[in-house]
Amino acid sequence: MHQNTRASCLKRLSKIEGQVRGLSRMVEERRYCIDIVTQVAAVRAALRKVEEAVLQDHIGHCVENAISSGNTTEQRAKVAELVEVLSRSNR
Amino acid sequence: MHQNTRASCLKRLSKIEGQVRGLSRMVEERRYCIDIVTQVAAVRAALRKVEEAVLQDHIGHCVENAISSGNTTEQRAKVAELVEVLSRSNR
Amino acid sequence: MHQNTRASCLKRLSKIEGQVRGLSRMVEERRYCIDIVTQVAAVRAALRKVEEAVLQDHIGHCVENAISSGNTTEQRAKVAELVEVLSRSNR
Amino acid sequence: MHQNTRASCLKRLSKIEGQVRGLSRMVEERRYCIDIVTQVAAVRAALRKVEEAVLQDHIGHCVENAISSGNTTEQRAKVAELVEVLSRSNR
Repeated sequence: MHQNTRASCLKRLSKIEGQVRGLSRMVEERRYCIDIVTQVAAVRAALRKVEEAVLQDHIGHCVENAISSGNTTEQRAKVAELVEVLSRSNR
Repeated sequence: MHQNTRASCLKRLSKIEGQVRGLSRMVEERRYCIDIVTQVAAVRAALRKVEEAVLQDHIGHCVENAISSGNTTEQRAKVAELVEVLSRSNR
Repeated sequence: MHQNTRASCLKRLSKIEGQVRGLSRMVEERRYCIDIVTQVAAVRAALRKVEEAVLQDHIGHCVENAISSGNTTEQRAKVAELVEVLSRSNR
Repeated sequence: MHQNTRASCLKRLSKIEGQVRGLSRMVEERRYCIDIVTQVAAVRAALRKVEEAVLQDHIGHCVENAISSGNTTEQRAKVAELVEVLSRSNR
């Protein structure tokens, strides 16, 4: 992963960790269910952003390297892997 | 929220917090992008389960109470709120 | 369903039927895969709009009637049905 | 597209066209909203299957050809296109 991507992912993940702790507090304090669900959705969306950043970086580096290498076996493997992970993240 | 639901949500959230910390470690240790993405997806799925548990509980209690109360204004409000949160969590 | 909703749904569905026929033509004419996939996604989005219109109408009428009726058994049934259909359409 | 894929897609699309016509009939006959929504979801799932079949075929043929060709410009274009279409179909 590129250094910038790594730094921004770590920052996001540290914020997400705090949000998850905040969720535990909300549950303990018996906050209203709908507010909890709304906050869970916000954390899921934040994780989605991390996922997208990592994938963008992966495509720009690992897949790009496989293409530049001219190694068709590696290219096939990278494409298959990418398709699998993108299809899975559909759900 | 019912006491059982609260306890199981807190347990799940504490595990999720650990998983998010694990994700930061994976990023720091420059683990393979695809493994990171796979793990992010696992955490999102775990949050989804919390969301579902809270919603189930909400429907069984808050919405149920509104119905039992016979207060139509409150019933309308609870249904509208539920539809909104379920539709939002669609995406 | 309200008359306006019914009319607009029928109009949408008739357009969708034409789009599906168009898709068959694209496949027969060996059009580029990505263009076909893009068009399939457009038809799915159009169906989604029909789904949303029918649900909006349902909530405004059937669920509303259950609330007005004061019949708690019916209210419970309507809420359960609504939650089920909204949760299913998540995926 | 491979001949087998084309034949099976045409068969599926013809069935889907019939299902959409069936939906119009359900709306005209004032069938119950929830039954209509359930049927719309079934048609959307059937379209999803067409999408997946076309994409599988595309990856097996067009992307595979780009890899075999050794043309890195074409490979990059195919990967970018694939990522875009898979990411879009996420939502």
